[in-house]
Amino acid sequence: MLTRIDHIGIACHDLDATVEFYRSTYGFTDVHFEVNEEQGVREAMLKINDTGDGAASYLQLIEPIRDDSPVAKWLAKNGEGVHHIAFGTDGDVQDEADGIAGKGVRVLYEAPRRGSMGSRINFLHPKDCHGVLTELVQKKS
Amino acid sequence: MLTRIDHIGIACHDLDATVEFYRSTYGFTDVHFEVNEEQGVREAMLKINDTGDGAASYLQLIEPIRDDSPVAKWLAKNGEGVHHIAFGTDGDVQDEADGIAGKGVRVLYEAPRRGSMGSRINFLHPKDCHGVLTELVQKKS
Repeated sequence: MLTRIDHIGIACHDLDATVEFYRSTYGFTDVHFEVNEEQGVREAMLKINDTGDGAASYLQLIEPIRDDSPVAKWLAKNGEGVHHIAFGTDGDVQDEADGIAGKGVRVLYEAPRRGSMGSRINFLHPKDCHGVLTELVQKKS
Repeated sequence: MLTRIDHIGIACHDLDATVEFYRSTYGFTDVHFEVNEEQGVREAMLKINDTGDGAASYLQLIEPIRDDSPVAKWLAKNGEGVHHIAFGTDGDVQDEADGIAGKGVRVLYEAPRRGSMGSRINFLHPKDCHGVLTELVQKKS
């Protein structure tokens, strides 16, 4: 079951400047940085609020670290903005992805990959989701 | 202060079909419909989770009801997808907007307008927010 908005993924050209914008404009100061080599991005997770399922909702700011990363290509086409949305699961992310695949939605990875803060993730094809690249997130237990 | 992700606003061509996608694919069944004549949209609020500030996070699905509404123009240019993000305030929305305007971010309305479910809202210019059309929401008290 999907029990929360886990995060909103926002692509940007300059991670440090964008984090500073969110900090100085809105006061979001709970920030976690990491590099995801597999996805070709450097990212910051800004915690916005706790959620009723015992987890939290974040903004995920993502900056490409390679010109051939999917996010670099997306930025070249679209410019900065919302790249994807992510729902959190209360169980195994691949069980959730399999259930959704059974409803005719294409799942992007055959097996879960590593997401932010040790999570396990998969993605759903935006063309099957009314234009929204949608991520499923199982937080680190 | 901004205390939650209030909603993610998603523009769509067919509201009923898109609500049905979110219901049947993910099981989101807590849905509120309304028409906002001023904004020129019909919309559905799908509740996703409770938030730590005593409110909730939603998906807001929006379908234009007039060809000259801003969302109709946005859809014609971009196709279906994430249109804006919204943060919830813990106080008066215009006080929050004024504070943000003082940091050099353009606020779109001189005074708050009516948002979903009786809320008071304002918007921040996406060009001042790293490409993200950003809404501020004071929920109905």
